[in-house]
Amino acid sequence: MSPAVPHRGDRLPLGIDEVLIDGGFWGTRQSVNHEATLEHCLGWLERLGWVANFDATAQGMGGPRNGREFADSEIYKVLEALAWESARTQDPQVEGQYQRLAARVVAAQATDGYLGTRFGGAGQPGRYTDLEWGHELYCAGHLIQAAVARLRTHGEDELVRAALRVADHVVATFGPEGIESVCGHPEIEVALAELSRATGRQEYLHQARLFVERRGHGVLADIELGRDYFQDDIPVRDATVLRGHAVRALYLAAGAVDVAVETGDRELLDALVAQWEATVAARTYVTGGMGSRHTGEAFGLDHELPPDRAYSETCAGVAAVMFSWRLYLATGQMRYADLVERVLYNVIATSPAADGRAFFYANPLHQRVHGAPVDPDGVSPRAASSQRAPWFQVSCCPTNIARTLAGLGGYVAAWHGQELALVQYMAGTIRTTAPDGSPVVLRVSTAYPEHGRVEIQVDQAAAGVALVLRVPAWAQGATAEVDGAALPVTADRVRVPLVAGSTIVLTLPVAPRWTAPDRRVDAVRGCVAVERGPVVLCLESVALPDGTDLHDVAVVPTTEPPRSSAEGGALVRAVRYAGAEADPLDVELRPYHQWGERGPTQMRVWLPQR
Amino acid sequence: MSPAVPHRGDRLPLGIDEVLIDGGFWGTRQSVNHEATLEHCLGWLERLGWVANFDATAQGMGGPRNGREFADSEIYKVLEALAWESARTQDPQVEGQYQRLAARVVAAQATDGYLGTRFGGAGQPGRYTDLEWGHELYCAGHLIQAAVARLRTHGEDELVRAALRVADHVVATFGPEGIESVCGHPEIEVALAELSRATGRQEYLHQARLFVERRGHGVLADIELGRDYFQDDIPVRDATVLRGHAVRALYLAAGAVDVAVETGDRELLDALVAQWEATVAARTYVTGGMGSRHTGEAFGLDHELPPDRAYSETCAGVAAVMFSWRLYLATGQMRYADLVERVLYNVIATSPAADGRAFFYANPLHQRVHGAPVDPDGVSPRAASSQRAPWFQVSCCPTNIARTLAGLGGYVAAWHGQELALVQYMAGTIRTTAPDGSPVVLRVSTAYPEHGRVEIQVDQAAAGVALVLRVPAWAQGATAEVDGAALPVTADRVRVPLVAGSTIVLTLPVAPRWTAPDRRVDAVRGCVAVERGPVVLCLESVALPDGTDLHDVAVVPTTEPPRSSAEGGALVRAVRYAGAEADPLDVELRPYHQWGERGPTQMRVWLPQR
Repeated sequence: MSPAVPHRGDRLPLGIDEVLIDGGFWGTRQSVNHEATLEHCLGWLERLGWVANFDATAQGMGGPRNGREFADSEIYKVLEALAWESARTQDPQVEGQYQRLAARVVAAQATDGYLGTRFGGAGQPGRYTDLEWGHELYCAGHLIQAAVARLRTHGEDELVRAALRVADHVVATFGPEGIESVCGHPEIEVALAELSRATGRQEYLHQARLFVERRGHGVLADIELGRDYFQDDIPVRDATVLRGHAVRALYLAAGAVDVAVETGDRELLDALVAQWEATVAARTYVTGGMGSRHTGEAFGLDHELPPDRAYSETCAGVAAVMFSWRLYLATGQMRYADLVERVLYNVIATSPAADGRAFFYANPLHQRVHGAPVDPDGVSPRAASSQRAPWFQVSCCPTNIARTLAGLGGYVAAWHGQELALVQYMAGTIRTTAPDGSPVVLRVSTAYPEHGRVEIQVDQAAAGVALVLRVPAWAQGATAEVDGAALPVTADRVRVPLVAGSTIVLTLPVAPRWTAPDRRVDAVRGCVAVERGPVVLCLESVALPDGTDLHDVAVVPTTEPPRSSAEGGALVRAVRYAGAEADPLDVELRPYHQWGERGPTQMRVWLPQR
Repeated sequence: MSPAVPHRGDRLPLGIDEVLIDGGFWGTRQSVNHEATLEHCLGWLERLGWVANFDATAQGMGGPRNGREFADSEIYKVLEALAWESARTQDPQVEGQYQRLAARVVAAQATDGYLGTRFGGAGQPGRYTDLEWGHELYCAGHLIQAAVARLRTHGEDELVRAALRVADHVVATFGPEGIESVCGHPEIEVALAELSRATGRQEYLHQARLFVERRGHGVLADIELGRDYFQDDIPVRDATVLRGHAVRALYLAAGAVDVAVETGDRELLDALVAQWEATVAARTYVTGGMGSRHTGEAFGLDHELPPDRAYSETCAGVAAVMFSWRLYLATGQMRYADLVERVLYNVIATSPAADGRAFFYANPLHQRVHGAPVDPDGVSPRAASSQRAPWFQVSCCPTNIARTLAGLGGYVAAWHGQELALVQYMAGTIRTTAPDGSPVVLRVSTAYPEHGRVEIQVDQAAAGVALVLRVPAWAQGATAEVDGAALPVTADRVRVPLVAGSTIVLTLPVAPRWTAPDRRVDAVRGCVAVERGPVVLCLESVALPDGTDLHDVAVVPTTEPPRSSAEGGALVRAVRYAGAEADPLDVELRPYHQWGERGPTQMRVWLPQR
């Protein structure tokens, strides 16, 4: 019951039925997703007629339809979210929403298996006549991911059977004898690989592999943005770093990891590891955000990381979690889980408003102006304001948040032989099964990340099983103990044999700390940031005295760490420039993921030093 | 014989027949324009079939045609360049090129005056059905500007008559009773205003004013880039700063100055002055370049001036010269001529290669990678490389350079009553007429900007006439003398009565100097630049020891000015980082306008300090 379940390799993630998140930072967000976001997305999809597109196609109406070429995918992502959520909560209302929506989608399927509302109907362009921009296989991929979620949580149903027919149609159309091309927007690759895992059918894996191998040979047209926009510039196994459209690059990389793992393609896996390393080293924000350019929603060059024009799309965060988690499962290296954590707390948690009904599409690290208010009942441009918006012209992010939060339990822990690795610290219960079939039950109590203490009560343990706890790279001075006895802490982990009735406590140092930028990142030279555990902090003008321009504030350099403030913030000494003068002014930083919640504001993560 | 000739206001620019540039920095560039660039542009326009579009329209062929929707405008800009150049050089070959090209354009005119190859023909979209993106009035504007050049240098001819019919058609179609809208790309405004000046016909001025006044009221559709993209967000007289697409904003502003001056609209002129001030203060690069964003080719917010992603389009430089020159003529303030100089030396001079057959479209201040070689015989994307390209998919810049260099003499000097103001220092001869009808002849000898001495021999003078020389704001310590006797130098000018036979020498301090950035420009915090007179210098990796990454070099802070080097460069003390070490390494900076001439290279204007 997990979004990614490798068949090969020796690390198996726990499912959402095994990781029960309850309260705390993420439990609250899962509840808001359940209570508000799913309904919110369904409402907008109806209101804008994007669901009705399927009804029209079912009735053979063809012609123009509502929304952009990828509108179908939003319905599919909500279906995936509903599938996870129905399994997670057993809520009959969610199950009903899933079934009603699935039925309308399935009704639109053509007799040969094709399913889509934009191409191939009367008065519409022909199928696959615009592989560069048409998003047909991208949409198919999201349908398949929804079906995989359903298959793993429920078993075969109408939607699953429809998705299998779609997959068969894709294999027949784009197989070795078929159209020798790929979709402008990767996504089908990861979807087909997971469908192969979920069904055991190898032809889906082979097709995923074919798509991965074809790309990079210039099979798509050379567009004005350049072929790197859709990663058709360099074959995946020859590339050294991610480039072009960030979401495309990351979805492709995630699918390529699946292909590499399932086919035992070590060379391909090594290439992807190298790409991840290079991308995280020089093309990733301190928030874990990826994508430095609005133009092409793209990665920049190495060290091109402007905070103010950071695109750092929410969906790139979702995709970075998918890619990094797969590399963790493939290698067991904790640094991939570190990146997952960074993205979860600073991108995934940043996008949705506290009420779950408004979202950031882009996640810049610097907001220069207060920004225009957002129409609380309107459709916004993608990346236009300092305020979260209810819906977008291109509205991939809200539905991506919904499916990620619903399936979040799938990214928390994994079995590796006799070791159970717990890599994300979320309050709740882990109820899993050891290799010998014995139940293992752990209760995790924590107010992380605001506080650094993670207490794990071992209610049931199995013989010979050890628990491995990730120690993040930032957590210098972390300590651990079991029933009061100290445990050794290595660079990135703590290992402790599981004994029923024992209590394990991991203490991570979440006091505020200064972070200096790489000297090669020109855009933040002379600045510092403050982090607190995995959480990046920021300064908002709403926290400054009335009338203060954020850009007149500079922090006073010091070797003392910043002081903690309530609600996970920090207090730092600063000055406010007023003409040639600089007056002292202490300022309070707050978690970046909360920014914008106090109204229109200027904001910055990187603070100039006096 | 000048691109801008106000009827009202009391400053009158000298024409290209009065300012004879000969040798030196600009004379060389005018010669290259004559020998290479004009032919180069004509060749590409033929090769790509953009001229043939007119033949097809003349034959009533309609249907699809070659190039983008604004392709016609490139032919018109070359016609304008040829018109100035024919008058400037009296070269019969240029005159022949003009006449042959003009004849093909004129042949395509419809009987009702409409002239264009993209709309209104059989199988084409209807006229004015896409005001947001169609560029029909933009193209008409460039045709009219070509006709104005011809009218002022030659008098009426076939092309002028065609343009008058076009203008009449525009007035009839978009007048008070006509379509109540504007063109997505401003240009018709400045063109109609100049046509009114050149013909004395008020209806063209009224139409220009109507277009200026309509814009900003949301008369165009709300596009994804936002209405500020084409300045339809705020009325011109209410705006406080330039925003949106830089070329559009600047062409509009230039036209609005013309309207304000000719109609005596002081409020409108004051608004434009305020917009210029705010834009130059916070939205302009040290090069004078404008446009901080690739997305929308747009101005950024205040102090959003990233050097690496600077768009700083060549055409925005052309338009900034047009806008600033008009404000100089309207007000006599030298700061406008200062900006013209900055743009001429660092944007206009930067775009064309020394051979006049390749161009920069964008003019970033930082090039991170050597960049892919450019196809010397191909069509390049707009802003993709560190190398100049022969032609672009959107190829507005080469033809804009051609017309600007051909008409350059029109931006050098102006009469203001009994004062002759010389505001740009170019070697050559000024042969003009005083208000009393007497000839005034000045010979300007200078190796400016490499050297700071400007010698003016007064061959003929008129009674009561004084010469005013601009002293740039950067020229602290400038001196002046007449026949060896010192002249007083005020903040921005020297004034000296003209006496035949005398020699006036202005000495501007062009030794290299450090320039510190505004502390609010985040993207260059902790950096310095070096300027030398009006010329911005830069460091290229081709000037570093083999294998040195430009980003490992930092300059050593010092209060000593940089030393001069040959060819207008400077030597500065620096270090090269190698791991934790920093080894001394002296580096030579060269004029930014020469960058890229030594092959693919990294480059930066703003240098990090150690």
